[in-house]
Amino acid sequence: MLQKVLTYIKTHQLCQPGDKILAAVSGGIDSTVLCELLHQLKYDFALLHCNFGLRAEDAEADQLFVKKLAKKYEVPFFTENFNTRAYAELEKISIQMAARALRYNWFEEVRQREGYDYIATAHHSNDITETILLHLTRGTGIAGLHGIPAKNGNIIRPMLSVTKDEIYDFVTSNKLIWREDVSNETTKYQRNKIRHEVIPVLKEINPSLEETMQQTAERVSHAENIVNAYIEQLRNQSIKETEEAVYLLLEPLRNATGLPVVLHELLRPFNFSYSVVLELIAALEGISGKQFESPTHTLVKDREQLVITPRNLSSFGSILINEGETTAQAGNLYFTLTYTDADKYKLSTKPHVAALDADELKFPLKLRSWQEGDWFVPLGMNGKKKISDFLVDRKVPANLKNQTLLLVSEQSVVWVVNQRLDNRFKVTDKTQRVLEISIERR
Amino acid sequence: MLQKVLTYIKTHQLCQPGDKILAAVSGGIDSTVLCELLHQLKYDFALLHCNFGLRAEDAEADQLFVKKLAKKYEVPFFTENFNTRAYAELEKISIQMAARALRYNWFEEVRQREGYDYIATAHHSNDITETILLHLTRGTGIAGLHGIPAKNGNIIRPMLSVTKDEIYDFVTSNKLIWREDVSNETTKYQRNKIRHEVIPVLKEINPSLEETMQQTAERVSHAENIVNAYIEQLRNQSIKETEEAVYLLLEPLRNATGLPVVLHELLRPFNFSYSVVLELIAALEGISGKQFESPTHTLVKDREQLVITPRNLSSFGSILINEGETTAQAGNLYFTLTYTDADKYKLSTKPHVAALDADELKFPLKLRSWQEGDWFVPLGMNGKKKISDFLVDRKVPANLKNQTLLLVSEQSVVWVVNQRLDNRFKVTDKTQRVLEISIERR
Repeated sequence: MLQKVLTYIKTHQLCQPGDKILAAVSGGIDSTVLCELLHQLKYDFALLHCNFGLRAEDAEADQLFVKKLAKKYEVPFFTENFNTRAYAELEKISIQMAARALRYNWFEEVRQREGYDYIATAHHSNDITETILLHLTRGTGIAGLHGIPAKNGNIIRPMLSVTKDEIYDFVTSNKLIWREDVSNETTKYQRNKIRHEVIPVLKEINPSLEETMQQTAERVSHAENIVNAYIEQLRNQSIKETEEAVYLLLEPLRNATGLPVVLHELLRPFNFSYSVVLELIAALEGISGKQFESPTHTLVKDREQLVITPRNLSSFGSILINEGETTAQAGNLYFTLTYTDADKYKLSTKPHVAALDADELKFPLKLRSWQEGDWFVPLGMNGKKKISDFLVDRKVPANLKNQTLLLVSEQSVVWVVNQRLDNRFKVTDKTQRVLEISIERR
Repeated sequence: MLQKVLTYIKTHQLCQPGDKILAAVSGGIDSTVLCELLHQLKYDFALLHCNFGLRAEDAEADQLFVKKLAKKYEVPFFTENFNTRAYAELEKISIQMAARALRYNWFEEVRQREGYDYIATAHHSNDITETILLHLTRGTGIAGLHGIPAKNGNIIRPMLSVTKDEIYDFVTSNKLIWREDVSNETTKYQRNKIRHEVIPVLKEINPSLEETMQQTAERVSHAENIVNAYIEQLRNQSIKETEEAVYLLLEPLRNATGLPVVLHELLRPFNFSYSVVLELIAALEGISGKQFESPTHTLVKDREQLVITPRNLSSFGSILINEGETTAQAGNLYFTLTYTDADKYKLSTKPHVAALDADELKFPLKLRSWQEGDWFVPLGMNGKKKISDFLVDRKVPANLKNQTLLLVSEQSVVWVVNQRLDNRFKVTDKTQRVLEISIERR
């Protein structure tokens, strides 16, 4: 097996003999074998271990086991504890996705900080077949069918040509001890079904199933590169980011090939599912204003563009600004309040700066989302206007509309934040003190 | 089920109520149901049936059954017998591929001749899942993962949303009779394994497996369209066809994304497998002259291009041309022989026309492949030259070299066909009769 791994490392140019390698080690059979392999191949290596805080004592025992393993090989040991559940909730992603993101981010951080060349993982050839079949069963695009690359940036997988049987032989002949893996039970259950019930049947049809799958995965991965290059080109033409929203221009997509896949990839960073993308496409020819939700974002079709905004601001409640306070925060908006004598004040023309007659205001001021029924007196006018009518007149897309904030003094709207002052609170000849409020998005 | 099929036809815009439809009917349960569906939905339809000549009496009984079915519905019946084995041998493809090609070619022929709008096949939703898993098990590129399109040119598949269970219910409630399908045993065995042993396990993981697979297939199919558009673009830049060979220029592929997949698609019409393409890529940086074989073609790397020629000519033996014969054939080359009096003859400068001194020739002439040791006296020279040296000097790529034919009179080479006359047989002042031989490739 040693020779097989060495050949694989050479033909796939994974790393050079002198390179420094971080081995990602859970303490299970595969990664225990990885350590022994790196040791026998005389690499300069260290052990990396994550505790995702999901399995209490078990996880601590794993951590201890890997620490001892590092001691046995007399190599450095790096470990970290994560609050995976909290991270998953914060990012609105699955526990598994969260663990994956945390793990690879931390791996790369350690690699750079400690001056290592590569991070090695213990994926083997059965993993490819299992992963493809699992993705296919759960539903996927071609990204789920490309298998596991031998090298991906600084991540290398020297054991990809090794089968599970060879791993079992290796631990026996090398008298290695490992810990049974008790991670994610659902995935484990599904993987076991595929490993023990599906793959043996498929191997009756094709005894070289693993090799075949490896080649299919490679072919899909080449095709994926072509697709990604095409999508990147369209991304540059169609995505425009501003402070308040991301705009996706529809014109460059007009004659796009494979539109559902293109649009799904363009909207993937905002967590829109393929099904929602199909609904969106069906609505593209329809009237403006239709709204779509992802776990993290809201998307509105607004004539020739899609307007995408984060959802957190829409659900922003309200905050109070007391007299004398000079800063306030709402979501990711930071407000700065500055008082100036009127005779020294110079009017700003920026939309995100409001200049108010300080003596007209009654504290505490309130910053809140607008509601149906709200009205104000737009600057330069005398009559009332409903906020809803004001927003419709300005053709504000629905999701930006939802994000509209009001600065309120007692029952009166003072400022439709970032859009228009109320006439009653403007700076006039009679104003003595000016309150300037400016906003910064962080 | 009627409603389900109708909705599927509408949402996928398969056809309009007035359209004329040809139903492809094997006589098995699925296609028998297709007939009943088209009947109940009041389409103007006819029945198409192929006899591939592979199963003797069984096939004839099928044919008869479908004929009776047409009678039952009082609709036209079209049938055809094929020599599938012979066609497969001729085209050097599998029996299955041959049957597929014959079937769809004939379908389209009947459609155009008889003035129908669409050809309907009885594929259903389980077919998609089974096909994808079967392709994945045997090895495939993304083309093998796109499932079965609802509409592909004039082919429509109105039953794609129907499950096998619904088909069984439908034949029961409609009291339909059908014939058990006894086609291709290997495929049937493999499909049965997947149907009865693999899919039930995967459905324990995902009970909506069929719907999921349908969506995955759709996503892959969009990605495939993107890949194909990219490859078409490169095909136009890199493939040049001439009479003697197909040339694949390497320069346009220099910075291609996903080169193995691109090259495989470009070489697919010449039946090169993905494995051979990988070997070819490994040899691209090497020296010229390396040769690769497919079942039908030979490919040689010749500096900045690949030269592709059919293999049949290489194995061409020899033919004799007797005195007085005015035509001869060798492979796909057709020779025309014309005698002219020397004083009336005008010399042709075309390379595929040879003008010879008829009285120097001894019949029968022989047309044969060149062999090691052959020599001639090139036109304009007096000394002998080995044919092998002549071909090397002219830098003829190895596979075209192999195809080089000689016209021989007794032991003497008269003409290196299409390349150079022998000096001893040229037309001179003393020539009385000119024999002009010209070649046409068909």
